[in-house]
Amino acid sequence: MTTHTTVSAYAAPSPKAPLEKTTIPRRELGEFDVLIDIKFAGICHSDIHQARAEWGEGTFPMVPGHEIAGLVAATGPGVTRYAVGDRVGVGCFVDSCRECDNCRAGLEQYCTGELGMVGTYNGVGRDGEPTYGGYSTHLVVDENYAVRIPESLPLDAAAPLLCAGITLFSPLNHWGAGPGKKVAVVGLGGLGHVGVKIAHAMGAEVTVLSQSLRKQEDGLRLGADHFHATSDPATFQQLAGTFDLIVNTVSAELDLNAYLGLLRTDGTLVQIGAPENPAPVAAFALIGGRKSLAGSMIGGIAETQAMLDFCAEHGITADIELIRADQINEAYTRVVASDVRYRFVIDTATI
Amino acid sequence: MTTHTTVSAYAAPSPKAPLEKTTIPRRELGEFDVLIDIKFAGICHSDIHQARAEWGEGTFPMVPGHEIAGLVAATGPGVTRYAVGDRVGVGCFVDSCRECDNCRAGLEQYCTGELGMVGTYNGVGRDGEPTYGGYSTHLVVDENYAVRIPESLPLDAAAPLLCAGITLFSPLNHWGAGPGKKVAVVGLGGLGHVGVKIAHAMGAEVTVLSQSLRKQEDGLRLGADHFHATSDPATFQQLAGTFDLIVNTVSAELDLNAYLGLLRTDGTLVQIGAPENPAPVAAFALIGGRKSLAGSMIGGIAETQAMLDFCAEHGITADIELIRADQINEAYTRVVASDVRYRFVIDTATI
Repeated sequence: MTTHTTVSAYAAPSPKAPLEKTTIPRRELGEFDVLIDIKFAGICHSDIHQARAEWGEGTFPMVPGHEIAGLVAATGPGVTRYAVGDRVGVGCFVDSCRECDNCRAGLEQYCTGELGMVGTYNGVGRDGEPTYGGYSTHLVVDENYAVRIPESLPLDAAAPLLCAGITLFSPLNHWGAGPGKKVAVVGLGGLGHVGVKIAHAMGAEVTVLSQSLRKQEDGLRLGADHFHATSDPATFQQLAGTFDLIVNTVSAELDLNAYLGLLRTDGTLVQIGAPENPAPVAAFALIGGRKSLAGSMIGGIAETQAMLDFCAEHGITADIELIRADQINEAYTRVVASDVRYRFVIDTATI
Repeated sequence: MTTHTTVSAYAAPSPKAPLEKTTIPRRELGEFDVLIDIKFAGICHSDIHQARAEWGEGTFPMVPGHEIAGLVAATGPGVTRYAVGDRVGVGCFVDSCRECDNCRAGLEQYCTGELGMVGTYNGVGRDGEPTYGGYSTHLVVDENYAVRIPESLPLDAAAPLLCAGITLFSPLNHWGAGPGKKVAVVGLGGLGHVGVKIAHAMGAEVTVLSQSLRKQEDGLRLGADHFHATSDPATFQQLAGTFDLIVNTVSAELDLNAYLGLLRTDGTLVQIGAPENPAPVAAFALIGGRKSLAGSMIGGIAETQAMLDFCAEHGITADIELIRADQINEAYTRVVASDVRYRFVIDTATI
């Protein structure tokens, strides 16, 4: 028999139902577990997709939230990495097989073992129990799946780095954004605005490709060198063959062939959003310049820690709007309407 | 006024018309030009696409042929790289701007200058004249756009290396085919059969993915370690997550998402054929393993020379069927029907 602790949370009781206050079980502290007193949880667009069962059925009640920042409140007897009071974060997954080539290489997000990457919520842990995310007061997690949040980063604005930050840092890092490289970020939302900050801090020449010029001032303030409207066909002529790397944060369906035309020889267009439908890709758009269309999904634990350290070094956090838990449903509506600059973060003291 | 020499050739007088014997002009030898006495010319599937105006209008009469092997018959006064009697080859292009970043980097095939890559046929040279290809007795070309065919390679079976060989060598080389890497070649035709030989010689573990098992014996003889039928759905389950690199030589429309599923984490699927229509690509097929869909087009001059030297070292040529010029139209019919093992080569002495 397993013992549980009951904690408060906000959950979607069924697909598309509004989130409401409830209680959920958290497992007793295991040997290598830490108990986290959650302080803040970011709202990611994928929370909404999953809570509304837009990415498959999902397990309900569902407690979303994988941008989690808090303090260690207790440690299991085998824990060596963290002590009570440490500032820690948890991102999109809380476990993986730990034995496959990818897990051994620090690519836990691509775990190929039988367990696979265990989502922070809407997943099933190695104990066979459903996982519940960060819209709650406490979380129990293996110490190897938590990361340290540097002292200089405020916990509220650091929370979104756990998903949005690593989702951008990883491809920018992997495909070599840096001095002498021209990088475009498509979409200036929760993901894109962090991407601009990180790419700029890496030393790349950064261009924002946004639907309109509405956010131009913001984009330049965040660190972009250039800002272009993709609704203007001239943009695609003017910038043809320009970029070494384009990171597409937009989940809406874009004409990928047009964006491939903006790449230089050997350039890469990276998808990090996931549109519902497959997009038509013309072979000629890739062949005429040895171009690549790639995908990238969050990042591994070690890389997430490296991202947080990098953000601390460069003073990077998300631009956030702090909300109470009873504002979650309203926030969801606003996220879907792209009406947030740039990330909602829940003050979990209000749960 | 420009002076020309008239030489014999086989040309398509108009789109879709059968090729027939004719004469064409070749420019007088310039300072850095070599005159090549063409001995053999391979028939590439793209010759047919262009002669039938399937890739756009094209310039007629059209003399196809960009897999050219011959002997230097004369040299311009400034030529330093070749002497009369040298064994040389010409591939898919005969000039480029020579000034853009790509030309300077030996990526002339991706020339971004105003001139662009000048196709060996169906192109326009820097003199403003149309270019005519290898289905002829002689060719005049700048010495920098010819390559040396090593003594150990027979000219007839070496001719297809100038397009088929480099088209496979370049992506295999660029994406690191070699010991410890699992490489799949999709399609065992004119391109694929050379790809199997080269990938095997590079030390990779090679798998052929062919529509049926009809060519299995051939595939294994050519150097493949494994051979699977793509018409069998079990293939896609059995080989899921297997390959570091897949080179797709097939121009027919395939389900690319199914092939992306065969890649390991960080694997790349390279398109070298160009299907007529864009193919639907699912973001999830790329994101769940940081996979790439890329394109590659022939190779630069230096790399083409490196390919020929590699082939000489490993005794690699194409498997060919030698034909007379008056068999070209029949050969075209057979190429379209995939009825050739594996490349037709024209004996240009019969023109």
